Order: sequence, then structure tokens, then C-alpha cells
Amino acid sequence: MCENYSLTRPLYKGARVRRMSTMTLFLAVDAGGTSTRCVAVDETGACLGYGRAASGNPISAGPALAANSVARAANAALVQADAPRARVAGVLLAMAGVSAGVGAQAFAPPLARIGVVAPVSFAGDLLATFAAGTPALDGYALIAGTGATAGRIERGAVAGTADGLGWLLGDAGSGFWIGRRVVRSASAHLDGRGPGTSLTAALLDELGLRDDRTTRDGRPAVLDRMIEALYALRPVELARFARLAFEAADTDAVAADIVDAAADALIGTLSSVFRRSVSGPIVLGGGTVAQHENLAARIAHAHPGSPVTIVEDGAVGATVLALRNAGVTVDEAVFDRIGRSLAALR
Amino acid sequence: MCENYSLTRPLYKGARVRRMSTMTLFLAVDAGGTSTRCVAVDETGACLGYGRAASGNPISAGPALAANSVARAANAALVQADAPRARVAGVLLAMAGVSAGVGAQAFAPPLARIGVVAPVSFAGDLLATFAAGTPALDGYALIAGTGATAGRIERGAVAGTADGLGWLLGDAGSGFWIGRRVVRSASAHLDGRGPGTSLTAALLDELGLRDDRTTRDGRPAVLDRMIEALYALRPVELARFARLAFEAADTDAVAADIVDAAADALIGTLSSVFRRSVSGPIVLGGGTVAQHENLAARIAHAHPGSPVTIVEDGAVGATVLALRNAGVTVDEAVFDRIGRSLAALR
Repeated sequence: MCENYSLTRPLYKGARVRRMSTMTLFLAVDAGGTSTRCVAVDETGACLGYGRAASGNPISAGPALAANSVARAANAALVQADAPRARVAGVLLAMAGVSAGVGAQAFAPPLARIGVVAPVSFAGDLLATFAAGTPALDGYALIAGTGATAGRIERGAVAGTADGLGWLLGDAGSGFWIGRRVVRSASAHLDGRGPGTSLTAALLDELGLRDDRTTRDGRPAVLDRMIEALYALRPVELARFARLAFEAADTDAVAADIVDAAADALIGTLSSVFRRSVSGPIVLGGGTVAQHENLAARIAHAHPGSPVTIVEDGAVGATVLALRNAGVTVDEAVFDRIGRSLAALR
Repeated sequence: MCENYSLTRPLYKGARVRRMSTMTLFLAVDAGGTSTRCVAVDETGACLGYGRAASGNPISAGPALAANSVARAANAALVQADAPRARVAGVLLAMAGVSAGVGAQAFAPPLARIGVVAPVSFAGDLLATFAAGTPALDGYALIAGTGATAGRIERGAVAGTADGLGWLLGDAGSGFWIGRRVVRSASAHLDGRGPGTSLTAALLDELGLRDDRTTRDGRPAVLDRMIEALYALRPVELARFARLAFEAADTDAVAADIVDAAADALIGTLSSVFRRSVSGPIVLGGGTVAQHENLAARIAHAHPGSPVTIVEDGAVGATVLALRNAGVTVDEAVFDRIGRSLAALR
């Protein structure tokens, strides 16, 4: 896996090909709970390779699988970049839960096996999300995926954090939080405690269950099978039912209430890190944000003067952080080059 | 363990000693998530022995440990009753989750090892709670312990059930539900999303943690240690923090709101099984009910005409059900005899 790669074809139209053969490379990894994205970037901000793999987050996937995913994504990016691996001068890994004691030691050996022996640095997902949306050094980020968290960024570092406390203690407004309300609303409907909702039929369908109209102790027998199916999941897996609430929100009052309450919770989390003294853009990321139709508009309304941007993932942000970590100034021009060159590779 | 026991001393003042040596005995077991209570009762309703052991609920303790606990409690009751084990004509086990496929096969072998070979029957905790408070055959029961459930009883059987769906899907107003809100309120206070509350200091104290006023990413570092401590628990163990809300409810607005919302949820659960056509007493049981100062009064107000009784546990109820199961009519007189004779043993 450590052979040299020839450098015969131009890799990115905007890159100065003259310098390519000697230019330092950086690997920027956005390691999410579902998938991992790796970008090979040169010091001008030209993205030369892009690779994907399964979850690279040690908390979601376990340290060994996570480290292998990161190495697989890195290998794919380097194959596309067609660059000698010895030229990689630094690896930056952006992921949630960085502070929970994740060290370079798990990630270094699989990277070394693909010929990457550069130092490994870490950044949190809030910083990567923020840097994915703006080259500014001050502002705010809100992530709502399976979990939910917000941060205030000052001088390129996280100066304030709210939530991100996981499914049991926090993650208000997250995919888990919404999914949990979906299954609780359906349960309450089935046992007569709550109002009727189309979420019930949608959830039963999603679980492959059919209400055969039989009862036990005076309530639908299908409820027992639903209990069995849902308790067999890991709690965070309830996030997959969040989609049902978004799909029904236009036609079902219970679903609409859940989605509204989630938006309120996310706006509350973001507002709690807001300071008048710190102005800058607000960057939103995560799979649940993308499903909230009016979230960006509501946030813009609540914080006039702060531009609101939605980013798809943290790949651009990890790339920005990898360059800054190496002492490269990422201004508007470099930021634009990263965005355009990465878009051409994806 | 199967030797015969002599019958030399009178065991219960109210029992007709003349009949004792030949009288049929029944074992009534109230198998809870925390402890198991067993009553040895004769067919007149005279309780002759009482024993306790650890959790006898297969869902909480696992089938093997649960069955051993039941046998230990039964053995203690029979030792106190000082009666030949061959005279036990029936065993009734009252426990939550009976319908979840618990069979006699797990409980029979440990009982056989202490010389009890009588048939084993099962009853749910709703029925045992109801029968602990009244000899009536129609009415309502509400249990709020770690979990929460309500039932409508008609002709001595459960005709309607609400909630009891477990910590993830339901148990609204339960000990877990309150405990979860306690830890979420403390978390939100610590990271600035929620209002200040004395629950935070109480919870940190309960966990043996100290806020050393250091911060990480702009929030108290103690929050990380709290996350670590709480995620190490099984979710249902959060029920132990419910006490903190009750203790602070008179002086702390956040705690008062949690306790009020829990009462609302429990009243809602009970109301959802209420039918105008079924009148009878309302029996409340479970460790969380006992801590709600005004719950019984609020329920009595919501359902005028229905007497409200709080019971300590389901031991009397299991005893009533064991006798009914054997064809004994439990009227007011028998019910009173059970209550008085059991109180004398405890």
C-alpha cells in the first residue's frame, strides 16, 4: 500500500500544476456517525482528492472500526489525488466528542499502514461545521443531526457550547428527540392516553407491523409488538423516526407540534450561546436541520444581522481547519478555492 | 429443606387453631422490581407467615434470580407459618409485565426445592394493587413507581390499561420520568440553556461530584463528569433522582414544575381508562405515589364519588387474588382479616 504514485495528469484545473509535484499535502477528515469524508488538499486550498468510508467516529463505531474507516477514506482521497503519501504533512480529524478523551493513538496505525505518517490533530464538529460555512473567525454554529449542539466561535476557537449532552441528558430538538416524541405519540394514541395521529400508522408501517384490531387488557395487541420492536433498538436509533414527523407536519397536528417544538428547542440552544459582543455568521449543519423547512428563516428572524448558512457536512470545514492548523491563512479566496475544487471532486 | 415442621404454637390469634393442622394454605407473592414479599395465608384469610427477599421480577432481575428470590421469600413465610409445605395448595405470583410471556417454568423448580409443588398462577401488578386497597370487583388502579400505569378493573379483571410502556415509550409521570427531568434540568442549568435550580447542586451531591468552577469550551467542566456518571447507569436507574424533585418542590420553581407535570401526567393516564359506566374505588400504589403530597387529593377532586386509597405494596392484594384464585369469596370480613393478620406479621 506504500508504493509511490505517478503524477502524470492535472488534477485540478485551478491548481498551479508547476508546483504540484513538490507541494505539501494535508488530509482533512470529517468523521461523522454515519459516514466519513476525507479531503486531500494542497497548501493553496486546491482539493486534489476526496474519499468516503463508513463511520469514523469512535463513539458511534468503536475506536478500531472508526480508525479503519478514516484510513479507508484517506486512502481513497490519496488515490484520487495521485500524490506520494510521504508528501502528506498533516492530518486533521474533525469529529463530535473529541474532548471525550479520543487520542491519536487509535488513528495513527491504520494511517501508517497506508503510508501516512504525518501528525494527527483533532477538532470538534462545531468548529468544522462553522468553518464549512464561512472563513470568518467569529460567529455561531448549530448542529442538529441524531444529536444537537450549538457553539459560539471566537477567534477561530469554541468559546461557548450548549447541549450536545447525548440522548439521555440533552440533544433537545435533535433527530433522537423528535424520533422519541414520534414513538411516544404513537404509543399514547394506541393506548388511548393521547390524541389520534397519522404518525401511528406511519410508525407501524416503518416497523413492518400491522394492527390486526385484536386487544389485550383493553388495548391494541399491536402495542405489545411495537414495544418489543422499539426496545430492541439502541436508543439513538429512534432518530430514524424523525423523518415521519417532518413528512406528516403539513397534515397532522401532532407531527406539526413535534416539529415546532424541536425548532423552538434548537433556537433556544443557539440563543443560549449568543452574545451581543460577538457578531458573525450563523452556520447550520446536520441531517435534521436540512429537514426543517423554516428553521433557517426563523433563526435569521431571531438574530437579524447575522447571515445564516446551511452546510451539507463538515468536509469543507475540516479542510479549512487542516490548513489553518498548518499555518495557512484561509481568507475568502482560499475558502472559495476549497469550496469550488471540492465540489468538482464530489 | 423438605422436612416437616411441627405445629406447636398458635400462629395467629384470630385463626381458629382447631382447624389449623389440616387447613389448606396458599402462598401469595408480590414480586416487585426492588423486593419480593410473600404471604402464607389459610383459606379463611388468616395470614400465618410473611417473608421478604430481593427482586422477584424476571424483567428487573432476570428469570433465574427472580425465581430464587420468590423461593426465598416463600421459604421465610412458611418458616414463620410453621406449616407442612405439602399443605400449600396454590401459589399466586403478582408482578408487572406478566403478559410479556413469563411462565411458571422458571418459578416451579426453586419452589419445588423448598417443598412447594402446588400449581403456580400469575396476576398483573394492576390487579394486585387494586385488590390491596379494596375487596370491590370494579374500580381503578394507578401505579407510579419506577414506571407508571393505570387500569380499569371490571368484575375482578383488568378491562382497560393505560401506559406501563416502559421508560422509552411511556411511563409518563413515573419515577424514571421525574428523574430524567431532574438530570435534564441540571444539565440545562449547567450549560446555560435552562434556568438556575437547586436540583443541580443536589444532583452533583448525590453523584459525589464537586463543581470546581473550571470550564471547558465555555461551560462547567463538572458537566463532563456528570455526563460520564449518568451514562454509566442503566436508564431506569434515573428514577433514584426523583426524590430530589420532591424534596425541592416547596422551594424551587423548576422542581415544583417537574412534580406538577408528573401529577398531571399520572392523572391523565388514570383519566384515560375512566368510564362513566364503571364506578368504584381508586387505589394508588408505588413508591412515587407516596411522595406526591397532593396527588390523592387532586385525583379525588377530578373523580368525585370515587374513594381514593393509597396502598403500601401489593402483598394484601396478592393474598386476596390467591384466595379468589382458589374459589374463596373475599368479602369485607375476609379482606379485613387479611389486612389485620398481615399487619401483625410485618
